Amino acid sequence: MASGSSSVTLDEALARLSTLNESIVAYQERLDFNNDAFFLISMSIIIFMMQFGFAFLEAGCVRSKNTTNILIKNLLDSCIASIAYFFCGWAFAYGTRANPFCGFGQFLMIGLEPAQFPRWFFQFTFTAAASTIVSGAVAERCEFIAYLVYSTLISGFVYPVITHWAWDKSGWLANGPEGIQFKDFAGSGVVHLHGGTTALIAAIILGPRIGRFPDKKTGTPAVPIKGHSTPFVAMGAFMLMFGFFAFNGGSQGTLGRPGDGETVARAVSNTMLCSGWAAITVLLINKLLVGKKWSMLLSINAALAGMVSACSGCDALEPWACSVVGIGSGICYFSLSVLVEKVRIDDPVDAIAVHFGGGLWGVIIAPIMMHEGIIYTGSRRAFLQWGWNLVGAAAIFGWSFLVMGTIFLILRITGFFRVPRDVELKGLDIYKHGEDAYPQIAYGHGWDKEEPSEDYFSNSTHSSYVRHRTGNGSPNGYANGGVAIKLNGSPHESDQMRGEHVHVWTHRNGQLADRDTYSAPSLRLHGERPENVHHARRRMYNSNLVQPENYYSRHPGWYNYEKDSRHMLHL
Amino acid sequence: MASGSSSVTLDEALARLSTLNESIVAYQERLDFNNDAFFLISMSIIIFMMQFGFAFLEAGCVRSKNTTNILIKNLLDSCIASIAYFFCGWAFAYGTRANPFCGFGQFLMIGLEPAQFPRWFFQFTFTAAASTIVSGAVAERCEFIAYLVYSTLISGFVYPVITHWAWDKSGWLANGPEGIQFKDFAGSGVVHLHGGTTALIAAIILGPRIGRFPDKKTGTPAVPIKGHSTPFVAMGAFMLMFGFFAFNGGSQGTLGRPGDGETVARAVSNTMLCSGWAAITVLLINKLLVGKKWSMLLSINAALAGMVSACSGCDALEPWACSVVGIGSGICYFSLSVLVEKVRIDDPVDAIAVHFGGGLWGVIIAPIMMHEGIIYTGSRRAFLQWGWNLVGAAAIFGWSFLVMGTIFLILRITGFFRVPRDVELKGLDIYKHGEDAYPQIAYGHGWDKEEPSEDYFSNSTHSSYVRHRTGNGSPNGYANGGVAIKLNGSPHESDQMRGEHVHVWTHRNGQLADRDTYSAPSLRLHGERPENVHHARRRMYNSNLVQPENYYSRHPGWYNYEKDSRHMLHL
Amino acid sequence: MASGSSSVTLDEALARLSTLNESIVAYQERLDFNNDAFFLISMSIIIFMMQFGFAFLEAGCVRSKNTTNILIKNLLDSCIASIAYFFCGWAFAYGTRANPFCGFGQFLMIGLEPAQFPRWFFQFTFTAAASTIVSGAVAERCEFIAYLVYSTLISGFVYPVITHWAWDKSGWLANGPEGIQFKDFAGSGVVHLHGGTTALIAAIILGPRIGRFPDKKTGTPAVPIKGHSTPFVAMGAFMLMFGFFAFNGGSQGTLGRPGDGETVARAVSNTMLCSGWAAITVLLINKLLVGKKWSMLLSINAALAGMVSACSGCDALEPWACSVVGIGSGICYFSLSVLVEKVRIDDPVDAIAVHFGGGLWGVIIAPIMMHEGIIYTGSRRAFLQWGWNLVGAAAIFGWSFLVMGTIFLILRITGFFRVPRDVELKGLDIYKHGEDAYPQIAYGHGWDKEEPSEDYFSNSTHSSYVRHRTGNGSPNGYANGGVAIKLNGSPHESDQMRGEHVHVWTHRNGQLADRDTYSAPSLRLHGERPENVHHARRRMYNSNLVQPENYYSRHPGWYNYEKDSRHMLHL
Repeated sequence: MASGSSSVTLDEALARLSTLNESIVAYQERLDFNNDAFFLISMSIIIFMMQFGFAFLEAGCVRSKNTTNILIKNLLDSCIASIAYFFCGWAFAYGTRANPFCGFGQFLMIGLEPAQFPRWFFQFTFTAAASTIVSGAVAERCEFIAYLVYSTLISGFVYPVITHWAWDKSGWLANGPEGIQFKDFAGSGVVHLHGGTTALIAAIILGPRIGRFPDKKTGTPAVPIKGHSTPFVAMGAFMLMFGFFAFNGGSQGTLGRPGDGETVARAVSNTMLCSGWAAITVLLINKLLVGKKWSMLLSINAALAGMVSACSGCDALEPWACSVVGIGSGICYFSLSVLVEKVRIDDPVDAIAVHFGGGLWGVIIAPIMMHEGIIYTGSRRAFLQWGWNLVGAAAIFGWSFLVMGTIFLILRITGFFRVPRDVELKGLDIYKHGEDAYPQIAYGHGWDKEEPSEDYFSNSTHSSYVRHRTGNGSPNGYANGGVAIKLNGSPHESDQMRGEHVHVWTHRNGQLADRDTYSAPSLRLHGERPENVHHARRRMYNSNLVQPENYYSRHPGWYNYEKDSRHMLHL
Repeated sequence: MASGSSSVTLDEALARLSTLNESIVAYQERLDFNNDAFFLISMSIIIFMMQFGFAFLEAGCVRSKNTTNILIKNLLDSCIASIAYFFCGWAFAYGTRANPFCGFGQFLMIGLEPAQFPRWFFQFTFTAAASTIVSGAVAERCEFIAYLVYSTLISGFVYPVITHWAWDKSGWLANGPEGIQFKDFAGSGVVHLHGGTTALIAAIILGPRIGRFPDKKTGTPAVPIKGHSTPFVAMGAFMLMFGFFAFNGGSQGTLGRPGDGETVARAVSNTMLCSGWAAITVLLINKLLVGKKWSMLLSINAALAGMVSACSGCDALEPWACSVVGIGSGICYFSLSVLVEKVRIDDPVDAIAVHFGGGLWGVIIAPIMMHEGIIYTGSRRAFLQWGWNLVGAAAIFGWSFLVMGTIFLILRITGFFRVPRDVELKGLDIYKHGEDAYPQIAYGHGWDKEEPSEDYFSNSTHSSYVRHRTGNGSPNGYANGGVAIKLNGSPHESDQMRGEHVHVWTHRNGQLADRDTYSAPSLRLHGERPENVHHARRRMYNSNLVQPENYYSRHPGWYNYEKDSRHMLHL
Repeated sequence: MASGSSSVTLDEALARLSTLNESIVAYQERLDFNNDAFFLISMSIIIFMMQFGFAFLEAGCVRSKNTTNILIKNLLDSCIASIAYFFCGWAFAYGTRANPFCGFGQFLMIGLEPAQFPRWFFQFTFTAAASTIVSGAVAERCEFIAYLVYSTLISGFVYPVITHWAWDKSGWLANGPEGIQFKDFAGSGVVHLHGGTTALIAAIILGPRIGRFPDKKTGTPAVPIKGHSTPFVAMGAFMLMFGFFAFNGGSQGTLGRPGDGETVARAVSNTMLCSGWAAITVLLINKLLVGKKWSMLLSINAALAGMVSACSGCDALEPWACSVVGIGSGICYFSLSVLVEKVRIDDPVDAIAVHFGGGLWGVIIAPIMMHEGIIYTGSRRAFLQWGWNLVGAAAIFGWSFLVMGTIFLILRITGFFRVPRDVELKGLDIYKHGEDAYPQIAYGHGWDKEEPSEDYFSNSTHSSYVRHRTGNGSPNGYANGGVAIKLNGSPHESDQMRGEHVHVWTHRNGQLADRDTYSAPSLRLHGERPENVHHARRRMYNSNLVQPENYYSRHPGWYNYEKDSRHMLHL
C-alpha cells in the first residue's frame, strides 16, 4: 500500500464511514417511524369503519320505528369516544405516571409527544369500537341520556383501564407471575369480553322489550319482533369484517421489526379462516342438527364471533389451529345465543353471544392452541399462561360487570335508563329525534307507469281525461277555471271515505261539461298506494301538485287545479 | 499499522465506501419514492370512497322519486372528473409552463413522467370530490344536461385553477408577501369553500324546489319536503368520514421526510376531534338552546362541517386548539344552515352550510390557532398570514362565484338548467332515467306467512282451499282444468273494484264443485299489500303466477291455473 | 499518510465497512419484505370489499323476495373460499411440486412458510372475487345446495388451476414460445373471463327465470322483472370500484423494486380512466344512438366492464391508450348485453356481458395497445404476444366451459340445480332461509304524525278521544275497565272487513258513555297502511299495544286496553 496516493487519510475515511453509519441509522429510525405511523394510521382508518358496520348491523336488527335512534347512537359513539379519549381516556390507559391499575397523565393530550399520535389514533379507534358494542344489546328501549352517560364512561374510563392492565407495560395483567403476560393480541378479552359483559349486564338490568317473551303471569304469548332490514345486517357484517382485518392485523403495532410483515399476514389470514369456519359451522348446525333453515343472520353473527375469537391468538396460531378455534367459536356463539334467549335476556342483535361468547372462547383457547401453548409443549409455563389468561378473563368480567352494573343500576333507579312504555311501543325515532327512518311523505312518484314514453309532452292523448279547462261556475264555486277534483268523503261518509273514487268535474265556460268518476288505482300520480283519502291527500300535498290552501282552509275536500296544460292532473 | 497485511488499498476501501454510499442513496431514493407512492395511492383509494359518501348522503336527503337521478350524478362525477382531469384538469393545475394563474402543459397526460402518476391520481380524487359537492345543493330539480356541463367545467378547469393558485409552487397564493403561503393544508378553502360557493350560487340561480317555501304572493304555505331515507344519510356520513381521514392525512403528500408520520397522525387525530366536537356542539345547541330534539341529521352535517374546517390546519394545530376549531365549526354550520333557509335558498342537503360555512371558518381560524399563529406568537408575520388567508378566501369565493355564476346564468337563460315543472313534480327518475329507485313491481313475495313450515310440500292440508282440479265447463270456458280464479271487478263495478274478495271456482269433471270467496288478506301470495285489483293484478303478473294472456286478451278478470299440484295457487 | 495516528487499522476499518454493508443488506431485506407485506395486505383488505360490492350490486338487481338468498351467497363466498383455499386451493395454484398444469403441495397450509402468508391472503381475496361472479347470473332460481357445490369447486380447484397456468412461474401459459408470457396483469382473463364463462354456461344450463322471455309455444308474453333497489346497485358499484383499484394496483405484488410505485400508480390511474370512458361511452350510446334514456344501470355495468378490461394491461398502457381500451370495453359490454338477451339467456345482473365481455376484450386488446405491443412496435414478438394471449383466452374459456359445464349438467340432471317452480314464483328467501329481506311486521310506527310535539305527555287534549276509563259492563264483558275497541269485521262481513272503521266504546261505571267510530286513517298508530283488519291486527299485535290473547282466544274482534293513561290508545 503506497502512502500518499490517496487523497484522504484513513482517519478521514473512518470519519466518513462513521458519518455514513450515523446517517443510515438516522434514516432507518426515521423510516421505521414513518412506516409504523403509516401502518397504524391506515389500519386505524379501516378500523374506524367498524362504526359503520356496527351501525348497520344493529339498524337492520331493529324495527323501522327505532332505526334513527340506533344510528345516531353509533354515529355519536365515535364523536363521544374521541372527546372522552382526548380528555382522559388516553390518560388512564397509557398516560405517564402509571401504576399497575391505570395510567395518569397527558390529560387533554397535553404533553403527549407527537410521536405517540399514531398510537393515540389507533387506540381511539379501538375505544370507539369497544363502546359501541353495548348499544345493540339495549336497542329499542334505552334512553338517549343513559346512552350518553354510559358511552362517555366506557370510552373515558372503564375500557381504558382494562387496556392499561393488559397492554401497557406497567399494567398488572402484563406483568404476571414468572414474566407471563396476559395473551390477548388484539382484544378478545380486552375489547370484546369487556363489551360483551357490559352488554350482558345492561340487557339484564334494562329488561326485555315489551312483548319479547311470553308473560308467565298473564299468559300473554310473546310478540314476534323482527329486524326491519336483512340487507342492512349483511352490509354491517361486510363492513365489520373489513374493519376486523385491520383490527387484528394492526394490533401488531409496528411494521419495521423483523417478522412484522409475516405476523400481520398471519393475523389477517387466521382472522378470515376463523370467521369462515365459524360461519359454516353454525350454518350446518342450524340446518342439519337443529333442522331449521339456511340462516343468514346466524351465519353472519357466527362469522363475527369467529373474528372476535381470533383476536386473542391470530398472531400465534397455525392456520389449522385457528380453524379449530373457529369451529369452537361457532359452537360457543350458537349455544350462548340459545341460552341467552332461554333465560329471557333480550339482546336484539345477539351482541352477548358474539362478543361475550366469542371473546371468552378466544381468551381461553388461544393459550392452548398457540405456538408454545399447551398442545405444542404441554409445559408448566404453557399451563401458567393459560391460568393467567383465565385470571385476566375473570378480572375483565368482574370489572365490567361491577362498574357498569353499578352505573346501569343507578340509571335504572333514577329512571333514566328506559324510555316510557308508550314511547317504546310507538317507537323512539319520532319522539326522541323527530326524524323517522323512512318518512312516508317522501315516497312515491307521479308517473302513471314506471317507464313513460319519452314523447310525454308531445303526446296529446295520454292525459285525455282532464285536459279540459274550466270556467266559472264549477261546483266548488271557483271562477278562475281549472279542473276541479273532488276526493270523496268526509269522516262521516264511510263509503266515500275510502278514497277509492275520484270524481272529476270538468267545466267549460261555466258549465259542467263532464263528470267522471275514477277509481283509486288511477290516482297513481301521487304515490304508490293511495288507500284512502287521507293518504291521498297527504301525497297530493307532498307532491306539490295540490296546494293545500283550498282543502285545509276554504273548501274541504276540494282541490283546484290552475289553468295550465303543463300542470294538468294526468289521471 | 503494518502495510500489506490488508488485501486492499485504502483507495479501494474508499471506493467501496463510496459505492456503498451511492447504493444506499439510490436505495433510499427508490424506497422513499415507492413509499410515498404507496402512501398517496392508498389514501387516494380511500378518498375515492367520498364519492360513495356524497352519493348516499344526498340520496337519503331527496325524495324517492329523485333517487336514481342523484345517484347517477354522483357516480358519473368520478367518471367525468377522470376524463376531464386527463384531458386538461391536470394541465391547468400542475402542468409545465406554469404562470401564477394556471399551469399549461401535459394535456391528455402526454409528457407526464410516470413518477408523477401517484400525485395525478391523488389530485384526481380531490377533483372528483370538489365537483360532487354542488350536486346536493341542486338536487331534485337540476337538468341532467346542465349537470354534465357544470361537472365537466369544474373538474376540467375551475377547480384545477384554484389548486394551482394555492398548491403549485408557481401559484400566486403560494407566493404571498414576505414569503407567506396561503395556509390551507387539505383544502378548507381550495376544495370546500370553492364547492360551497358554487353550491350557493347554483342554488340561488336555480331557485327553490316547488313548494319548498311559502309563496308570499298567493299565501300558499310551504310543503313539507323530507329526505326519503335517514339510514342512507348515516351511511353516507360514515363513508365521508372514512374518506376525510385520508383526505386530510394524505394531504401531507409524502411519507419519507422527517416528521411526516407524526404530521399525518396529527392530521387524522385532529380531524376526528374537530368532527366530534362540532357534532356534539350542534347536538346540544339544538336540544338545549333551540329546544328541539336530538337530531341525527344536524349532528351528521355538523360532524362533516368539523372535518371540513379541520382541513386547513389539522397538520399544525394542537388537539385542544382543534377542539376549539370544532366547536366554532359547529356553530358556524348551525347558524349558516338557519340563515340559508331564512333567506329562502333551498339547499336539500345543507351543502352550503357544511362546505361554505365549514370551509370559510377553517381558512379564517387556522392561522389564528395554529403553531406560530396569532394565538401563539401574536407576531406581525402571524397577522400577515391571517390576512393572506383572508385574501385567498376572497379570491376563491370571487372566482367560483363569478365563473360558475356566469355558467349557471347561461344555463338558466338557455333553459337547460331546470327540469320542467311537471317533471319536477312527478319526479326525475322515471322520466329522465327510466329507472325508479324502488320499482313497486319488484316487491312482495308469495308466501302466506313469513316463515312457512319446512314440510311445505308434504303437508296436505295447508293448501286445502284450492287443491282441486277442474275439468271442463268452468265458468271461463277453459277445458284443461285448473282452478279458475276471478278477481272481482271491472272499472265500473266499484264495489268489486277494491279487490278485497277473490272468488274461487273449483271444478271437478266439468261441474262446479265449489265456489268460495276469500277476502283480500288471503291474497297474500302476490305481494304484501293488494289494496285493489289493479294492484293485485300487477303483482300477480309480476310474480309469474299468473300469465297475463288470459286476463289481458281473452278473459278479462279471469286467471286460469294449470292442472298441476305444484302450480296450485295456495290461498 | 502517517501510520499510527489512527486508532484503528485499515483492516479493522474494512471489517467495519463490511459489517455495515451486511447490516444494511439485512435491513433492506427486512424492510422490503415488510413493506411488500404491508402493501399486499392493505390492498387485500380493500379487495375483500368487492364481496360487499358484488353482494349489493346483485341484491339490488333481484326482486325483494330473493334478496336474502343472494346476500347469503355472497357472504358465504368468502367463508367457503377461505376454507377451500386453505384446504387445497393454494396447493393447486402455487403449491410446491408444481407441473405446468397445476401445483401440488402445502395442503391445509401445512409447510407454507410464513413469508408466503401475505401472498396467500392476497390470492385468497382474488379467489373469493372469482367465485362470486357466477352467483349473479344464476340469481333468483339456483338451489342453495348447488351454490355450495359450485362455489367450493371454483375456489378450491377450477380457478386455482388457471392462476397456476398464468401466474405461477411453472405454469404453461407463463412459459410461452420464445419466452413469451401470457399478458394478464391483474386477471382480465384469469379472473373475469373465467368467471364470465362460468356465468355463461351456468345461465344456459339453468335456463331463464319463469316469465323472463316470451313463451314462443304458448305465445305468453314476457313478464317485466326488475331489480328491487337501484340504490343498492349504485352502492355495490362504488364498492366494486373501491376494490378494483386495489385489485389492479395490488397486482404489482411488490413495492420495493425500482418502478413499483410508478407502476401501481399507473395501474390505478388507468383503471379509473378505463372505467370512466366505458361508462360515458355507454351512457351516450344508449341515449344518443339507441334513443333511450340516461341509464344509470347500464353506466354502472359499463364502468365495471371498463375496470375488468383494464386488468390485463393497466400496468403497461399509456393513459390515452387505456382510454381507447375503455371506449372499446363499453362497446363490447353494451353489444354483448344486447346479444345475451336476444339469444334468450337470462343473466339478472349482466355478469356475462361485464366479465366475459370486458375480460375477453382486455386480454385481446392489451397486447395491441401496450408498450412494446403491436401499435408501438409492430414487431414479430408483439404479434406472438397477441397470439399467445388468444391461446390463453381460448384455454381459460375451454377449461371453464367444460369443467363447470359438466358440473352444472350433473347438478341439473340430479335435480339439485334449480329450485322448484313454486318456490321460484313465491321467492326463495322465506322458504329457503326463513328470513325475508324486509319483514312487514317490522315496519311502521305508532305516532299520529311524523313529528309530534315535544310536550306530548303534558298535552291533555291530543288524546281526547279515548282517554276514558271503562268500568264493568263493557260490551265485551270485561270488568276491569279499559277502552274496548272493536275492529270491525269477520271474514263474512265484507263491509267491515276492510278495517276502515274503528268503533270505540267508552265506558264509565259500567255504562256505555260514548260510542264512536273512527275511520282507518286515524288508526295510524299501528303502522303506515292499515288497509284491512287483518293487516291492522297484525300491526297491533306487533306493536305490542294489543296483546293478542283477547282476540285470538276469547273475544274475536275485540281488544281490551288496560286502565292506564299511559297505555291509552291515542287515536
